[in-house]
Amino acid sequence: MNALEMKVANLVELSKVEVGYEEIPSIAPNEVLIKVEAVGICGSDIHYYKHGHIGKRTVQYPHIQGHECAGTVVEVGSHVTKFSIGDRVAVEPGVPCRTCEKCRSGKYNLCDEVVFLSTPPYKGTLRQYINHPEDYVFSIPDSLTFEEATLAEPLSVGIHALNRANLKPGMKVLIMGMGPVGLMAVAATNYFNAEEIAVTDMVSHKLEVAKSLGATQTIEVSKQEIVENYFDVVIETSGAEQALASAVNSLKKGGKLVSIGFPRQQNVTLDLTTMLQKEIDLLTVYRYANAFPLAIKILNKLKDITSNIITSTYVLDDISGAMEKACETHLDTIKVIVYLNESSL
Amino acid sequence: MNALEMKVANLVELSKVEVGYEEIPSIAPNEVLIKVEAVGICGSDIHYYKHGHIGKRTVQYPHIQGHECAGTVVEVGSHVTKFSIGDRVAVEPGVPCRTCEKCRSGKYNLCDEVVFLSTPPYKGTLRQYINHPEDYVFSIPDSLTFEEATLAEPLSVGIHALNRANLKPGMKVLIMGMGPVGLMAVAATNYFNAEEIAVTDMVSHKLEVAKSLGATQTIEVSKQEIVENYFDVVIETSGAEQALASAVNSLKKGGKLVSIGFPRQQNVTLDLTTMLQKEIDLLTVYRYANAFPLAIKILNKLKDITSNIITSTYVLDDISGAMEKACETHLDTIKVIVYLNESSL
Amino acid sequence: MNALEMKVANLVELSKVEVGYEEIPSIAPNEVLIKVEAVGICGSDIHYYKHGHIGKRTVQYPHIQGHECAGTVVEVGSHVTKFSIGDRVAVEPGVPCRTCEKCRSGKYNLCDEVVFLSTPPYKGTLRQYINHPEDYVFSIPDSLTFEEATLAEPLSVGIHALNRANLKPGMKVLIMGMGPVGLMAVAATNYFNAEEIAVTDMVSHKLEVAKSLGATQTIEVSKQEIVENYFDVVIETSGAEQALASAVNSLKKGGKLVSIGFPRQQNVTLDLTTMLQKEIDLLTVYRYANAFPLAIKILNKLKDITSNIITSTYVLDDISGAMEKACETHLDTIKVIVYLNESSL
Amino acid sequence: MNALEMKVANLVELSKVEVGYEEIPSIAPNEVLIKVEAVGICGSDIHYYKHGHIGKRTVQYPHIQGHECAGTVVEVGSHVTKFSIGDRVAVEPGVPCRTCEKCRSGKYNLCDEVVFLSTPPYKGTLRQYINHPEDYVFSIPDSLTFEEATLAEPLSVGIHALNRANLKPGMKVLIMGMGPVGLMAVAATNYFNAEEIAVTDMVSHKLEVAKSLGATQTIEVSKQEIVENYFDVVIETSGAEQALASAVNSLKKGGKLVSIGFPRQQNVTLDLTTMLQKEIDLLTVYRYANAFPLAIKILNKLKDITSNIITSTYVLDDISGAMEKACETHLDTIKVIVYLNESSL
Repeated sequence: MNALEMKVANLVELSKVEVGYEEIPSIAPNEVLIKVEAVGICGSDIHYYKHGHIGKRTVQYPHIQGHECAGTVVEVGSHVTKFSIGDRVAVEPGVPCRTCEKCRSGKYNLCDEVVFLSTPPYKGTLRQYINHPEDYVFSIPDSLTFEEATLAEPLSVGIHALNRANLKPGMKVLIMGMGPVGLMAVAATNYFNAEEIAVTDMVSHKLEVAKSLGATQTIEVSKQEIVENYFDVVIETSGAEQALASAVNSLKKGGKLVSIGFPRQQNVTLDLTTMLQKEIDLLTVYRYANAFPLAIKILNKLKDITSNIITSTYVLDDISGAMEKACETHLDTIKVIVYLNESSL
Repeated sequence: MNALEMKVANLVELSKVEVGYEEIPSIAPNEVLIKVEAVGICGSDIHYYKHGHIGKRTVQYPHIQGHECAGTVVEVGSHVTKFSIGDRVAVEPGVPCRTCEKCRSGKYNLCDEVVFLSTPPYKGTLRQYINHPEDYVFSIPDSLTFEEATLAEPLSVGIHALNRANLKPGMKVLIMGMGPVGLMAVAATNYFNAEEIAVTDMVSHKLEVAKSLGATQTIEVSKQEIVENYFDVVIETSGAEQALASAVNSLKKGGKLVSIGFPRQQNVTLDLTTMLQKEIDLLTVYRYANAFPLAIKILNKLKDITSNIITSTYVLDDISGAMEKACETHLDTIKVIVYLNESSL
Repeated sequence: MNALEMKVANLVELSKVEVGYEEIPSIAPNEVLIKVEAVGICGSDIHYYKHGHIGKRTVQYPHIQGHECAGTVVEVGSHVTKFSIGDRVAVEPGVPCRTCEKCRSGKYNLCDEVVFLSTPPYKGTLRQYINHPEDYVFSIPDSLTFEEATLAEPLSVGIHALNRANLKPGMKVLIMGMGPVGLMAVAATNYFNAEEIAVTDMVSHKLEVAKSLGATQTIEVSKQEIVENYFDVVIETSGAEQALASAVNSLKKGGKLVSIGFPRQQNVTLDLTTMLQKEIDLLTVYRYANAFPLAIKILNKLKDITSNIITSTYVLDDISGAMEKACETHLDTIKVIVYLNESSL
Repeated sequence: MNALEMKVANLVELSKVEVGYEEIPSIAPNEVLIKVEAVGICGSDIHYYKHGHIGKRTVQYPHIQGHECAGTVVEVGSHVTKFSIGDRVAVEPGVPCRTCEKCRSGKYNLCDEVVFLSTPPYKGTLRQYINHPEDYVFSIPDSLTFEEATLAEPLSVGIHALNRANLKPGMKVLIMGMGPVGLMAVAATNYFNAEEIAVTDMVSHKLEVAKSLGATQTIEVSKQEIVENYFDVVIETSGAEQALASAVNSLKKGGKLVSIGFPRQQNVTLDLTTMLQKEIDLLTVYRYANAFPLAIKILNKLKDITSNIITSTYVLDDISGAMEKACETHLDTIKVIVYLNESSL
C-alpha cells in the first residue's frame, strides 16, 4: 500500500487550491498510518488561504492545509501499543519534542520544536493518508461520527481557556464571538457547569446555535448592552479591540479575561487603568495541552452537532468550493467539513 | 488626652499644604490610638497634590494625605488584645469590611467598602494621632526604626506582585522602574531568592540603590538593551507603554507580566499578538492583602535602608518642603519621610 | 417581642432532651433575629446526645443542640443592609473572628475564635429564635423549602471537600459512606460534573438515594469489590479504617484521598507505603469556608430532596422522638428535621 | 572504544558485592555515553544490599546498583544536540516514557513505564560507563566537583518535597531525620528562604551538619521537645511512626505534613483525629520531576559540601568497603562516594 499514491489538496497560490497526488507516507515505529475521513476547515486555514501568512509564518507553495482531523487507523508501527487496524481516531495535530523543559513540565503547547500539522512548513491533513505518532492520536467512541470528532481540536482550545481561567462550577461566564472556537468554548463551559453563560456575536443565527450548546443569554453585538462588573470570566475569541474593552467593563473585580483571538493588528489598545483598579488579569491561550481526551468526552455528550455546527460538507474533489464556503463566516457558515475518502461519505 | 488638639497637614488647594489643628480622634473598642512618628510620601500623594484627583477620585479640601505610617500605641480600646501602650507599630492603611465575599475569601484588597487612609474622602496619616483597628496594625521589632517601618506599605505592594506571579526560587526576574515600589519589589524578589534580578530606570543613582537591595543586573533605559525571551517574570512599576512593550519582548514563553504602575492615560497599547504566541499573561496588582507581616520580616533583614532609600526627612512644620521634595522623582529623590511629632526626631 | 419567651430543646443529661423556655435573644447592630423554621439533626448532635462530648469538647447541661438551620428574618439590627423582615434564610452556623490571619486569608474555618452554634459552650439552633450576624446568613429562593435549606450545611462540607481536592469536570470519584454528608457530597460532585461517581454504603436503600443524586455506580460494602488504581479522588465520610485502606487501593497514582469522617479512635492505621509509591495525598476537611452560596445554588437544582433525603420530620414538642429517630443511622434513616414553630408545618 | 570492556560492581548475593566486567554499552541516537566519575550510595541501595528487595521489587543477581551519578560525556549519539565530548554532567536516573498522560502533564515521576537506573531489573551506575538519553543528563558548572554533583539526586527529592508543600519564603519548617535526603531538604529549604528551619535526628553530629546547611534550630530526638502548633510545613524523611505523630502535633492548623521516608512496615498509625481538627494534609513524595536543574543551581551555592556531607570515598575495587561503610548510618556516616574510574581520583 505504501507504494500507492493518494490525493492531496494543494494550496498553489493565494486563494487557489487544487487536487494533487503524493505518495502515501510511510510510518516510523511509533506511528500509525491514518486514512483521513473528515477534516474541518479552521479560521487559520482561511487566513493562510487568503493572505499567505500569519505573522512571520509564510506559506511555501504548494502547501497542504488542514489540522482538524479524524480517520481510521490502517497501519501500525512496530512499537505502537494503543492502536489496531480499523480503530476510529481523532488526531491531535501538534506533536512536541517531548524532551524540553516545557514538555517535561506539562506545557507542551509552548514547546519550541512542536511540529503542528498545516502550520508552514509542515503538511496538513487535507490528504487521504497521514502518518502520526500514536501518543497524539486518540480513540473515539462509535457514537461519534468522524466529522463530529474533528471538533475535538477547536474544543480543546476552549478547554484550555477554561483551565487557564481555573473555571469553577457556579461561575458567571461571558464568551465573545460565536465562531467555531467560541461555540466550542460554550460547550466546554456548559460541561464545566458555569451558572451563567452569556454569549455575543453579530450573527443572530450563531447566537441561536450557542443556545443549543448551553448559552443562557445571547447578546447581539452593537444592539444589546453587556452588564458591567458582573462576570467572573470572559473568554474573548474575536481579537477585536472593542470586544476587549467590553470584556474589561463586564468583569467583576478580580475577574479573568481570557484572550484566544488574534487581533488584526500586532497591537491592541487596552484599558489598563480599569484592569488595575479591578485587579483583572489578561490570560492568553496558545493552542492547548492535555485537552484532547476531555474534548472527546464532551463531544460525546453533545446532541445535534452535525445539524447545528457543521453547516456544510464537501468532498476532496470540490476542495475549492469548501475553502470558499469556509470564508463566509460573516454569514451563517460555522464549520465546513471536507471528506477525504469516498468511504467517508 | 482626647480633648487635646493635634497638628495635621491640610492640603488646602492644588500644590498647597499647610499645618492645621484638629481634635485628637477617639477610638472604638477594637481600635488603638497611635501617635504617628513617621510618614512616607507616596507617589499617589504627589499625584493628588499636583492634580487634585486620581481618575474619578477627587480631593475635597482641606484633605489630609499620607498612608505609609509607623508610630507608637498610646491608647487601646476595650476589646483590643494584641497591643499595649508603648508598642511600636506599622499601620496597614486599608481597612476592609471583613464581611463581603472578597474579604471572606482572602482578597480583601478588592473589598468594595475598604476605608483606605488618605484616599478621598478618608483622612490620611499626616497628623499627629490616628485611630486604627488593631487587626490592621502590626508590631515592629526594636531593630527597625519608625521611618524604616513606613516602607512596609510599598514593600507589601511588591510582595503582592510576587504572590500574583507565583514567584519561585531560581526564577529570572526583570523589575522595571526603580521608584520606591520598584526598589521594594527588588528587596522582596531578593528575599524570594530569584536567581537573577535585572532592573531598569533612567536615573543611574536609583540603579545603584537597586544593587544594594539585591539587583544582579542594571539596565539604564534607552541606553542599554534588554535581552529577549529570557525572563520568567517582569514586574512593571512605571505604567509606561514602552516599558510594557519591552516587558513582552523580554519574557519567555509562558512568562508573567505583572503590572503595578498606573499608565498616564486610561488606555495603553499592548502587543497582544506576541503575548498570544508566547502565552504570556498580564497580571495586575491593586494594593495588597495579607502582605504586611512578611513585609516587616523582610525590612528587618535589610541593611542601610535609611541611607539608601530614605533620601530626605522633614518635620511636620515643613510639610510644604517635604511635598515639593517628594515631587523630584526625576532626580535622585527616592523616599521622603515626614516626622509628625518632635519625639520622632 | 424581645420580652417574650420562646421554646428551646434542652439536652439535660445523656440521651435526654426536653422542651424548656428562654427569653428570645436580643440582637446586636450587625445581627438579625431569625424565627427558626426547620433544623436538621446532624451526626455530631447525635454523638453529643449519646456520649456527652466529642474529643475534649464536653457538654455542660442544659445544652441546646442543632446547627443545620433555616428560618425567617423577623427583626434586623441597625447596621444590617442585606436583609429585611420576612426574608427566608439559611444560617451558616460558624461565625469566625474576621480579624485573624486565617480569617484574612480566606480560611476562616480554621479560625481559633470561631463561634459555632451548638458546639459547646455555644447554644445551638433547636430553639424558636436565634440572633445571628448578617454576614453568616444567606437568602434562599422561594423554590426551596426551609427543610431543604437546612441541607446547605452538610452540602457545604461536600463542596469544601471538592475544593480541597481541586475536583475537575471529567474526573472519576469514589464517595464512601452515604450518610447525609456523603449524599450531599454526591450532589456536589454531580454538580461539578465528575465523569463517574461510585458510592459505597452498607444500607442498600441509601445507595438508591445516592443514585437519585447522581451516583453512577453503587457498591454495597463487603459484598462488592472496588476497582483498584482507578479513581482520581476518593471522599471518605465514614472514618472507618477499612474504608481508608480501600480508598488507597482504589486511587490512581497521584490521586487524592479526602478525609471527612472522624475515626472512632484517635488514630487510624494507614498504608503509607502504598501512598508513597503512588504519591497519593491525604487531604482533610474541617467544616467549610465560602461554600454556603454555592450550596444554596446546588440545592435549588436538586429534585425530590424531601422525599429522598429527609426521612422523618418532628415538631419541637416531640424533640425526644426526633433525637431517637436520628440515632437510627444503621437503618434507612438519613436526615431527621425538626420544625421549631407551628407556622413551619 | 565500544568493543572494550569496563569494570562494574556486581551485587552477587545478599550483602556481597564484587567487581566484574561487561562490555561498554553502545548508545542510541538520542543518547550520550558517560564515563562515570562518581556515584553516591543511597539508602535504597543499602536496603537492596541487605534485604534483596524493596516491597515487591526483587533483585535478580548479579545486579548493578547505584543511581546518584556524575561523569564525563565521552560519546554523543547522532541526534544529540545539548552535549559535546568532554562535558561534565550529572545524571537524572529515572527516564520516563514521555508519552503517557502523566508524562504529558508534567508528573513524569508517576509514569508507569519509567526506567530508573538501579531499580530492578534495570542496571545502576556503579560501572565505568553508562548510556543515557540526553534529556535526562544535565551540565554541571566547573565549580562543582563530580562527587558534589552526585548530590543533585537526593537534593531533587528535597526540592520535590518543597514543591509539593508549595513552600513560600517566610514559612516555618521542621525537617525530621538528617540522613542525606533530610540534609538536602535543609539545603533546599534554606534556598527557598524559610524563616525557620528546625531539624531532628538522633545523631548530634548530623544536627551540626544540618546547621552548616541552614538549620536554625536542632532537636535531638527523645532528648528535646518539639514545639506544638507552630510549623507551617513538616518534612518527614524517617518513616518512623513516632516522627509522624510528632509532626502532626508540631503543625499549625492548615499545615502540611510532607512524607518522604518509607516506613518499616507497610502501614503506619496516624492521628487522623487531630489532622481533621487542624485540617492538616499528608502529602507524599515519590522521587521527583523537573527538579534537577534547580538542584544543580543550589549545590553550586553551597559551601563545604565535601567536608560536611561526603563522609567517605572509595574506589571501585573497594566497593565492598564502600557498601559496608554506607550501612553505618547510625554512626556519623552521611554519604559514601565511589570513584568509578582512576581519573576521578
